[in-house]
Amino acid sequence: MGEFGLIERIKSKLSLPHKDIIKGIGDDACVTDIQKGKALLSTTDTLIEGVHFDLRFTSAYNLGKKSLAVNISDIAAMGGVPRFFLISLGIPPKLSVEFIDEFTSGIFDVSHSCQTHIVGGDTSFSPDRFFINITILGEAFKGDVICRDNAHVADQIFVTGNLGDSALGLKILMDRNCTSKVEEIFKELIEKHLCPTPRVSEGKLIAKNRIATAMIDISDGLISDLEHICNQSKVGAKIWIENLPLSDAFQKYSLKFTDTPIDMSLCGGEDYELLFTVDRRKMDLLRKIMPILKTKVTHIGEIVEQKNGITVLHRNGQVYPVKRKGFDHFPITFKDQVSF
Amino acid sequence: MGEFGLIERIKSKLSLPHKDIIKGIGDDACVTDIQKGKALLSTTDTLIEGVHFDLRFTSAYNLGKKSLAVNISDIAAMGGVPRFFLISLGIPPKLSVEFIDEFTSGIFDVSHSCQTHIVGGDTSFSPDRFFINITILGEAFKGDVICRDNAHVADQIFVTGNLGDSALGLKILMDRNCTSKVEEIFKELIEKHLCPTPRVSEGKLIAKNRIATAMIDISDGLISDLEHICNQSKVGAKIWIENLPLSDAFQKYSLKFTDTPIDMSLCGGEDYELLFTVDRRKMDLLRKIMPILKTKVTHIGEIVEQKNGITVLHRNGQVYPVKRKGFDHFPITFKDQVSF
Repeated sequence: MGEFGLIERIKSKLSLPHKDIIKGIGDDACVTDIQKGKALLSTTDTLIEGVHFDLRFTSAYNLGKKSLAVNISDIAAMGGVPRFFLISLGIPPKLSVEFIDEFTSGIFDVSHSCQTHIVGGDTSFSPDRFFINITILGEAFKGDVICRDNAHVADQIFVTGNLGDSALGLKILMDRNCTSKVEEIFKELIEKHLCPTPRVSEGKLIAKNRIATAMIDISDGLISDLEHICNQSKVGAKIWIENLPLSDAFQKYSLKFTDTPIDMSLCGGEDYELLFTVDRRKMDLLRKIMPILKTKVTHIGEIVEQKNGITVLHRNGQVYPVKRKGFDHFPITFKDQVSF
Repeated sequence: MGEFGLIERIKSKLSLPHKDIIKGIGDDACVTDIQKGKALLSTTDTLIEGVHFDLRFTSAYNLGKKSLAVNISDIAAMGGVPRFFLISLGIPPKLSVEFIDEFTSGIFDVSHSCQTHIVGGDTSFSPDRFFINITILGEAFKGDVICRDNAHVADQIFVTGNLGDSALGLKILMDRNCTSKVEEIFKELIEKHLCPTPRVSEGKLIAKNRIATAMIDISDGLISDLEHICNQSKVGAKIWIENLPLSDAFQKYSLKFTDTPIDMSLCGGEDYELLFTVDRRKMDLLRKIMPILKTKVTHIGEIVEQKNGITVLHRNGQVYPVKRKGFDHFPITFKDQVSF
């Protein structure tokens, strides 16, 4: 099958008509409509084989899902709704048509469930590695956008879902060295690493109700991402260990794979949960909408003055010394990636 | 210098405040404003070292310029104005900070001259090759957008600038095998290959005056790009050889480097000129605005019925048999790249 055949497969699989797409893929550029009064959100991310993913650990389908999901997560973290995406693929000769088909199915399933449409693409021959670049465009009412730089002293800190599952899932994959050798009981954790769910409806509800003063998605780990909020808002934070939301699976199995599960939950990356700060006066409103949020929300700490930095505390007030080493999300070179 | 230092350099160099950028780079996503009544144009392109460029032939500065320019050219070909761009870089260890600085300067100079602003980025460690992905966002009034699918029989075919210079420039670079060995007299041709100028103001004027029925930028070569218009518009075309616009340098030197200069001008890629079709009734209007266009415009052919296909003719009506082989823009694997 020629390259053009492959492109036609990708295009026909991903491209669906939509009222806001005036001219879809197939011209010099796509032409789309942005709703009046809304701001355009944009962000881009690259995944490189051997740097951000390992084809021994992920199926093509899951890789497709995750590639789009992590980008959508950035839009969710602004309180926006993903609308359009552009995808560039560098395809090495070793990949089969079936691989690309499955990868495309993964992309399609996430784009479909998040109602996001393709508005541009590029496929190139890549001599050695598979790489994926996705740019995502979202929309939000201008007043609803939630940035990282507006947390204030005494704001309360919340997080959706659980922490550390993705890092534990990755650790299990690396220990077993092969997906097929992973025991059934760990599948849930592996899934959290391979197929994160972007918290779009949660982010949108938080934005619409103006509940959060600052928000970010957890890609680098709770502490690292909290640092982004603290640095940009010029504040500090304290986190209460006993409040950290840990899944049953994490509580049950983490000690089999790490001596420091607390650090894994604090510093493990790629949970793609939302971390946000709430003005005390909005706490009642948050409690009111909690039942309609698809994901649980946990109160884990409080914003303090910048001079106090970020501290992690036990219930008795004792400081927990965080060990950050060893929980970078993909272990080889994660520190070399910066999105801006 | 750490990776964060590098990012800060790139960010500080590229990021300028702009009234339509509500929130610039540094958050989960950028937040921008799109003007009322305008459509959003989007397209993405990847350049991979050894596939689309060769670091022996281009300086970092020129590579930066070209990376952004070829994307902007796609927006120009829709009759739009480039507004924002997102850039992802995969940076191998062999590249120096100075290289990235110069590359960024090239990007900046084009973004500045085309009034295009950065709204997202990602830098990753890349184990072997340098690669660049740029997504560009443009704007156009909805009624002004010019697609590829609206050429009609009897429309006249025009092209901006000259044809074949870029292909000849590349041929010279490859023959000499090193930029420093290229003689001064060929510099103009090399420049056309390494630093193409996107025809933004020309495209905008053509769009604003509703002169063109279809338009495309010439990236794959005149014949290939004309094929895109013909296939999508369901028409054929004839091109008059004697009318092909050739630069003085091309006329003077092309025979030193190729036995088939006509084929080079017909099939050589990367001229990034605008190819467009005009309804006969708009010819007077076109002639009227020609003097205010920054670039010359040449009448090179006519749209015919689809069943006649695309033919290239001598003045006496004799058909010229086009030889397409050997003029792919970057020789190794060009046929493997498809933008959609």
